[in-house]
Amino acid sequence: MQTATSETNDLISSGKVDGTAVYDREGERIGSVKSLMIEKRGGRVTDAVVSVGGFLGIGEKYHSLPWQTLKYDTDVDGYRLDVTEDQLRSGPTFDETNSDSALDRDYQTRVYSHYGVNPYW
Amino acid sequence: MQTATSETNDLISSGKVDGTAVYDREGERIGSVKSLMIEKRGGRVTDAVVSVGGFLGIGEKYHSLPWQTLKYDTDVDGYRLDVTEDQLRSGPTFDETNSDSALDRDYQTRVYSHYGVNPYW
Repeated sequence: MQTATSETNDLISSGKVDGTAVYDREGERIGSVKSLMIEKRGGRVTDAVVSVGGFLGIGEKYHSLPWQTLKYDTDVDGYRLDVTEDQLRSGPTFDETNSDSALDRDYQTRVYSHYGVNPYW
Repeated sequence: MQTATSETNDLISSGKVDGTAVYDREGERIGSVKSLMIEKRGGRVTDAVVSVGGFLGIGEKYHSLPWQTLKYDTDVDGYRLDVTEDQLRSGPTFDETNSDSALDRDYQTRVYSHYGVNPYW
């Protein structure tokens, strides 16, 4: 059942997204996926919200990243970012106190502009 | 900010999928979305896992439904099913004791065959 297993691993439940590891270009673990933003109608993932830094939720920053900047890597069972560390550090963030920002069109516009990705809307 | 609001409502966080209402063709509420199955690489929603029946989790049955059978309806902020109640009742289910079934290719094959939807794989 090798095939079934590997194919199974192609899917993830939305309930288990939280915690998926995120690595930078060099393979350093830089954070984890907090949530995915999903189009309610089209059923397409538009962004990954990546949690970077912090400890036990204190000082944690959330970076919205256009889906195209993440490549899934089965070897590490996580996502590799196709952005530089500088790009990430200077990118738009939000935190627990304004977590609805991820859904905000103004914020999204800044995100897509920052990473040079064509908006999905 | 009418536009921003309605556009905001087009997105949902994967962390808030659980509980989204599901209605049948006649507009009766028949259950709620438990989770979405997402392709890790492509970032596409393949199935919705819909919880039907039960009370406080007891006797709850989960139905995997191909994404194409759900239409998002902004009026009710939920999904309408494009399947008959009979189709749903006789469809493949699983429960808490075998929740990994949703990821299983054999189960998926039965689901897509049952609802007459071309498999995504």
